[in-house]
Amino acid sequence: MATTLSATESLSLLSLSLACVGILANTFQGDGAPLVASIAFSGLAFASCYALIRWLGPAFMRRGFKGRDLCKLKQTEIPETMGAVCAMVYIFILVVFIPWPFYKDIVAATSGGGNRDVMMELDQVETGRLLHKFPHNKLASYLSAILSLQCIVLLGIGDDLFDIRWRHKVLIPAIAAIPMLIVYFVDFGVTQIVVPTPLRPYLGDLVDLGWLYYMYMALLSIFSANGINILAGINGIEVGQSLVIALLIVFNDALYLGPFAPYPHPATDSHLFSLYLLLPFIGVSLALLMHNWYPAKVFVGDTYCYFAGMVFAVDGILGHFSKTLMLLLLPQAFNFVYSAPQLFHLVPCPRHRLPHLNARTGLLECSRAEFKRPPARPIAEVLKLLHRLRLLDVETGDNGEIVSCSNLTILNLWLVWFGPMREDRLALGILGFQTVVGLLGLFVRHRMALLIFTQDNW
Amino acid sequence: MATTLSATESLSLLSLSLACVGILANTFQGDGAPLVASIAFSGLAFASCYALIRWLGPAFMRRGFKGRDLCKLKQTEIPETMGAVCAMVYIFILVVFIPWPFYKDIVAATSGGGNRDVMMELDQVETGRLLHKFPHNKLASYLSAILSLQCIVLLGIGDDLFDIRWRHKVLIPAIAAIPMLIVYFVDFGVTQIVVPTPLRPYLGDLVDLGWLYYMYMALLSIFSANGINILAGINGIEVGQSLVIALLIVFNDALYLGPFAPYPHPATDSHLFSLYLLLPFIGVSLALLMHNWYPAKVFVGDTYCYFAGMVFAVDGILGHFSKTLMLLLLPQAFNFVYSAPQLFHLVPCPRHRLPHLNARTGLLECSRAEFKRPPARPIAEVLKLLHRLRLLDVETGDNGEIVSCSNLTILNLWLVWFGPMREDRLALGILGFQTVVGLLGLFVRHRMALLIFTQDNW
Repeated sequence: MATTLSATESLSLLSLSLACVGILANTFQGDGAPLVASIAFSGLAFASCYALIRWLGPAFMRRGFKGRDLCKLKQTEIPETMGAVCAMVYIFILVVFIPWPFYKDIVAATSGGGNRDVMMELDQVETGRLLHKFPHNKLASYLSAILSLQCIVLLGIGDDLFDIRWRHKVLIPAIAAIPMLIVYFVDFGVTQIVVPTPLRPYLGDLVDLGWLYYMYMALLSIFSANGINILAGINGIEVGQSLVIALLIVFNDALYLGPFAPYPHPATDSHLFSLYLLLPFIGVSLALLMHNWYPAKVFVGDTYCYFAGMVFAVDGILGHFSKTLMLLLLPQAFNFVYSAPQLFHLVPCPRHRLPHLNARTGLLECSRAEFKRPPARPIAEVLKLLHRLRLLDVETGDNGEIVSCSNLTILNLWLVWFGPMREDRLALGILGFQTVVGLLGLFVRHRMALLIFTQDNW
Repeated sequence: MATTLSATESLSLLSLSLACVGILANTFQGDGAPLVASIAFSGLAFASCYALIRWLGPAFMRRGFKGRDLCKLKQTEIPETMGAVCAMVYIFILVVFIPWPFYKDIVAATSGGGNRDVMMELDQVETGRLLHKFPHNKLASYLSAILSLQCIVLLGIGDDLFDIRWRHKVLIPAIAAIPMLIVYFVDFGVTQIVVPTPLRPYLGDLVDLGWLYYMYMALLSIFSANGINILAGINGIEVGQSLVIALLIVFNDALYLGPFAPYPHPATDSHLFSLYLLLPFIGVSLALLMHNWYPAKVFVGDTYCYFAGMVFAVDGILGHFSKTLMLLLLPQAFNFVYSAPQLFHLVPCPRHRLPHLNARTGLLECSRAEFKRPPARPIAEVLKLLHRLRLLDVETGDNGEIVSCSNLTILNLWLVWFGPMREDRLALGILGFQTVVGLLGLFVRHRMALLIFTQDNW
């Protein structure tokens, strides 16, 4: 792998960076246009992440962050855990971005017109007390989001370093969610949910979930982060799916901001907040994808999967669209449910379940779980039913006993459906599927919501 | 090194933890007594940090975080970078502590009496808008402090992993300070300082430093973190000095809170804030010191030094007593100035400057820098002057040329003054010196402040 930038790359990244800096400089005129600034920062995030991944590769490999690509004929070692670089750049950009959306609050709280007429008395200054108080709870939410993301990066690096056991790993996102949940509790504290119309006669209009609501948010983090972590294994799939989900959320956010929606819409702020978190994420993920796409030059590591999942969870919770988020994560949910029999060892689970490379054709084929002894009868019946529904490929011996079945992941299922294909075609197929399901989900969410709620909040 | 807890240790830690949990449970009655809760959390921090250091040692050594103790006859390998464990526990405790000091704000903002009479309308709930706004800028400060500390841990771990170059390392604390500075800018934004009385005719009562104030804060972070990092090398000295400084700040904070001070004092909040940050720090540092004291069973790593320095910088800046902080860091400042000739290579600088173990006596002696060729005349004159002032031990050859001198660190100077001694005696001596200087500094700060300011803010 090249460890320096080519002349073309250097020039492109430099031009992009300069353009972004120019845009940023321009935002100082006028009212600071935070959305424009966010786009410019995302460009900077892309450029710096792209360069850093290239430059830091050798250092990572020296320190043991490296791995072999099992789906290639020539298994050279390439850097691992590059998602950590992405995440650090992302967090840094989020921090530096703070003055753009929040500076306005300060001005708004004074006499307006850009005057910062701060009332202060000498003894107050001398004792260092607060001079003006602003309703900065959006800032607290934003900071808590960064804290949670930083937490997941720390824990993810810990995982990549120390190989934490599977059953502990699952809980990492819940631990990382704690800063966000605690600030939510202190700062916002609303745990009521709107009851769907058909249930209102029984439950009333609102139900206060209390601590269950915090459980729900923690579980959403666990699901989101681990959902992305188990739909993994081939080049570009982890970053690709994260990019698709991020773009779909951005599309949904844009519905509330564009010329299509009445302005100012009551949910405008929430969706702006969501955009500010997602645009730089798209920037760093794109830079990573360009190194991780087939044939991969770096691996992303568990750190990236956790980090990406946590970005979505934080975004959905603090942007108040967690139900919409779950619609966008349906492929991950399906993959989890589909994998469950192997994860819980009802069906034998080999060490690796990623597709198998046929060295002769150069194509990926679905990998198989071999049954050392035939499965119990109920399990066998279910597997055969799945086979008839074309949701599994089961191989039976002469006596009708199950000998093997395709591994229970969506990647293998895709290969069962469409036959052997090259690694990048497989990744593209899954990403296309993710896009279609997501768009359908958004359509359902906005068109069908009226059936169970009194109003769509769009 | 033992990697499990003895029965006595387990029992003690468990009793301590239970007592702390009991105290915490009690704080739910009444108004939540955040200071009591902070003390209880510090107990929990101590107990969990103590146990984790013991348990995680082997995992750290397996992953290459290990080192040899150069001041021992038998140089067995022991775990390195254990400060990272401390820092993680500390940050976790700070996050979980949030509801205690900040919950009160919410209640205070409603009709009082503990009622949380939240005004909300259905469409607001449905669109997920903010339902109540509170002046939570202290929360934003607190969160920004945690963010900066998490940053320094991430960067510190990066340094311990990748061995960042010296000239980049120095800037790490400045980078980590960025979250705090940006939130300070957005949230507080006061950059005026009070002018000392003698200068008022020329400068007025207040001077607005503008961006220089941010430079000052960044430099304070750099100085504080690196100051602790270069006063290092023997068992217990890094943690010991940090503990002494933390205790002195706590003592200073207590002056504003105890029965001696009028209550409520205008600076009470700032000093409570400072206590909340420092008490858990004392908890985790104590646990680390018990493993790092002579003969050390673990090393603390650069991570701890940066982390400790950053805790002080954050505490001093957000608690608004940065000048007092500098008085407490005088020994570090002296050590830095004293080391400068070697750091900038005016005097030869060997790879390690820590004191030298005399294998026969088992005592530490001052280590020496050898001059391959005699130093330039002005440098030689200065070194000889320092020798006459008993601030250096210079060895001259027959012709009067300097052959060697003791290494320019406060540790070696101490050995020049008091002769060879055992490692723990040396550490105790330096810590005693740090304590005396700090107490003098506080005395000067509170008694002499009136000479240059119109009032002491105590």
